[in-house]
Amino acid sequence: MVRKIVIVGSGAAGMTAASTARKTDPDAKITVITEDEHIAYSPCVIPWVLEGKTSWNNIIMHDPEYYSQERDIEVKTMTKVHSVDLNNKTVDANGDILHYDSLILATGGKVFIPPIPGKDLNGVFVVRTINDGKAIESTMKDADRVAIIGAGAIGLEMALAIHNVGKKVVVVEMMNQVIPRVLDSDMASEVQCYLEKKGIRFVMDAPIQSVNGDDIVESVTAAGKTIPCDMVIFSTGVRANLELPKQMGLDIGTLGGLRVAPSLQPYQKGKLLNNVFACGDLIECESAVAPGPTMSQLGSSAVRQGRVAGINAAGGHALHEGVTSPWVSVMGDIEIAGTGLSTGLAHWYGMNVVTGMSSGFTCARYYPGGKNLKVKVLAERSTGRLIGAQILSGKDATGRINWLSAAILERVTAREFLSRYENAYCPPTSMVRDVVFTAVEDLASKL
Amino acid sequence: MVRKIVIVGSGAAGMTAASTARKTDPDAKITVITEDEHIAYSPCVIPWVLEGKTSWNNIIMHDPEYYSQERDIEVKTMTKVHSVDLNNKTVDANGDILHYDSLILATGGKVFIPPIPGKDLNGVFVVRTINDGKAIESTMKDADRVAIIGAGAIGLEMALAIHNVGKKVVVVEMMNQVIPRVLDSDMASEVQCYLEKKGIRFVMDAPIQSVNGDDIVESVTAAGKTIPCDMVIFSTGVRANLELPKQMGLDIGTLGGLRVAPSLQPYQKGKLLNNVFACGDLIECESAVAPGPTMSQLGSSAVRQGRVAGINAAGGHALHEGVTSPWVSVMGDIEIAGTGLSTGLAHWYGMNVVTGMSSGFTCARYYPGGKNLKVKVLAERSTGRLIGAQILSGKDATGRINWLSAAILERVTAREFLSRYENAYCPPTSMVRDVVFTAVEDLASKL
Repeated sequence: MVRKIVIVGSGAAGMTAASTARKTDPDAKITVITEDEHIAYSPCVIPWVLEGKTSWNNIIMHDPEYYSQERDIEVKTMTKVHSVDLNNKTVDANGDILHYDSLILATGGKVFIPPIPGKDLNGVFVVRTINDGKAIESTMKDADRVAIIGAGAIGLEMALAIHNVGKKVVVVEMMNQVIPRVLDSDMASEVQCYLEKKGIRFVMDAPIQSVNGDDIVESVTAAGKTIPCDMVIFSTGVRANLELPKQMGLDIGTLGGLRVAPSLQPYQKGKLLNNVFACGDLIECESAVAPGPTMSQLGSSAVRQGRVAGINAAGGHALHEGVTSPWVSVMGDIEIAGTGLSTGLAHWYGMNVVTGMSSGFTCARYYPGGKNLKVKVLAERSTGRLIGAQILSGKDATGRINWLSAAILERVTAREFLSRYENAYCPPTSMVRDVVFTAVEDLASKL
Repeated sequence: MVRKIVIVGSGAAGMTAASTARKTDPDAKITVITEDEHIAYSPCVIPWVLEGKTSWNNIIMHDPEYYSQERDIEVKTMTKVHSVDLNNKTVDANGDILHYDSLILATGGKVFIPPIPGKDLNGVFVVRTINDGKAIESTMKDADRVAIIGAGAIGLEMALAIHNVGKKVVVVEMMNQVIPRVLDSDMASEVQCYLEKKGIRFVMDAPIQSVNGDDIVESVTAAGKTIPCDMVIFSTGVRANLELPKQMGLDIGTLGGLRVAPSLQPYQKGKLLNNVFACGDLIECESAVAPGPTMSQLGSSAVRQGRVAGINAAGGHALHEGVTSPWVSVMGDIEIAGTGLSTGLAHWYGMNVVTGMSSGFTCARYYPGGKNLKVKVLAERSTGRLIGAQILSGKDATGRINWLSAAILERVTAREFLSRYENAYCPPTSMVRDVVFTAVEDLASKL
């Protein structure tokens, strides 16, 4: 019997699940159903396309023909799955009834726009798909002033990209710092300062109240201030797409994502569901750091989860264990990266935090071309265990944050990190004792 | 009673020990005794000084006055410790008898030159100290053809630096690959190929037999071939400086280094010695990977060990645990990095190895400016545990090798790495699934 695998969603999670399922079961019939027009691209790159660093065509890696011919995976684009019948193991895709042996839900998330007046005016956008990006690009041509609502990493990357093509950009943020949830305020203020020096304006502590204009956007109002603008881009956070899970009666977690087990199986009334798996922005999973669930909602997490869902849906065995959710964002000459908990998140989970900080360079002090490197590390006060890290750097933040993620994952204390962990050294690539160590040493001295 | 700490040696290990001891005990009397003229510099940078990337003055971070004034550490340069009296706790430094409460041996290593005819001719050099570097620089001015004996990382860095200033360079290596001990032959052949394309000549499988000339070097002979040259640089490996340990009757390990416990205390006839510590190129310590001792002999290891020795000598408590010894070397546009065991070393320790390999880019495929990135990973066949990794890349090898070192240190299997470890992603800094993961995946598929 040929195994029928149906995957709903064609983002990083869905397409990775499809390709991994193919590797796991060479004979399976694999069908991907998606509402999207384009598949197999990275939405994370949209700011850089708008800036002209690469093109829309370049960022689409494969089309449905490729998947059909090279991987024997059928992709039905612009097709909506309206419902799933768990008893009969079928999905209704635009009226076609498809049978499945394994079903993978990878329906992703959507940008949350607060229910304010004017949110549906012409000139209001979100950043989620290529078509969102193309619509922004097209409208931007005639726009002079652009308001970005939300100062998360995506909002800031968009702000800088649009500033770089010569527009006047204002960022409106409801909190009192940029990248609020995952970056500490001291690191965040440096990022904001860098972008302000570039010429980007910030309106902080300013929850958005309305988008104003007759038919077309003329301004936004936030915290009582009215800010004139020709277009508005909402980057106000992503919420799980729960339409299908709700129709199926699946359990939703406390963070508003689909609850899953380490096998990535969802629950129905507390009971694990067989033959169904979920991955990507949709799900909430266990944190490797905090005593509770978390939502990664990162491209890299989607791929990691898609792999597990694909293996399991194809009859293999893989687990998705607790996550630290490392992330990195590039803005002009600086890289900002983080992993594990920020101070704010740690407090949210009820943890008492000690922090350490150190500044230095990405290469030996005397070697030309080095960039500034600032590392902040966080530990749980009661145990000394590392629970988070943040990096602000001219380069090479990614490897360092992955390295620190490993230590956090392994529940290493600050003292253990100092006595057991090592760094490679060559004058052009690092200081003889990496700044990561001096930051952890600063932390350990406070424990 | 003020604690008297005497440190013999002023390299990275000795100076780190001194500074860390000062932090641990603000009142101690700390004396560093060294045969060297210059202290507190990185010998690793010598190739780049010769190439003109930085200067001799730049690479000396501090002089004895700085240590005296800023850290209350006395440094006696150009002073030899002839003997240690363990019973009376004294050292004889050029005839002065100094009492110690804690003694730190950080006498480093010296380049091993095989006992061949002509090894003492004018025009024969080693690369170890600033004065070695200055002597090479001075002679190089009138030299046209330079022979480098030994194709380890330092030999190759020197070869490229000297090639870059316009000399004809030939590298003579006794083994059949470059960077023999720590790099696998497939990775090594790419490095050799890169340097050959630059114009550096290699004579492989060629143990050096003689340096030839009347008074001044005219050629070298290796494996029967005579290679004309105007100067010769030996980079034939570093051996521990055992003069003082032997005088003290300390136990020497099977690899020819001073045997130490995790506290960095040496042994005398199998018994741990109190109040004496050792660190740096001198010592052999436990491997975190292999069932046996290892010698790191890296600048970063020296700093790490110096810290432990300094804390313990000053009455604190720190341990130096098993090492993976990550290293990185930069040659022109490429970075070569490794950690843990190479295939050759694993076989030497009697381990059966499985390898995985993957190639990709340092950023998203569609993002401009990405560099090639090749990752090789090694696991022990019986357990699947990761035991080594090697990277060849246009950039960002260091963070990745530190990250892999953490996984090796934590005795993570290839499968665990896939299910537990995560990477941060942003199009300009990495692929959505880092090449490290696809390499480990390739490995896991063979287990």
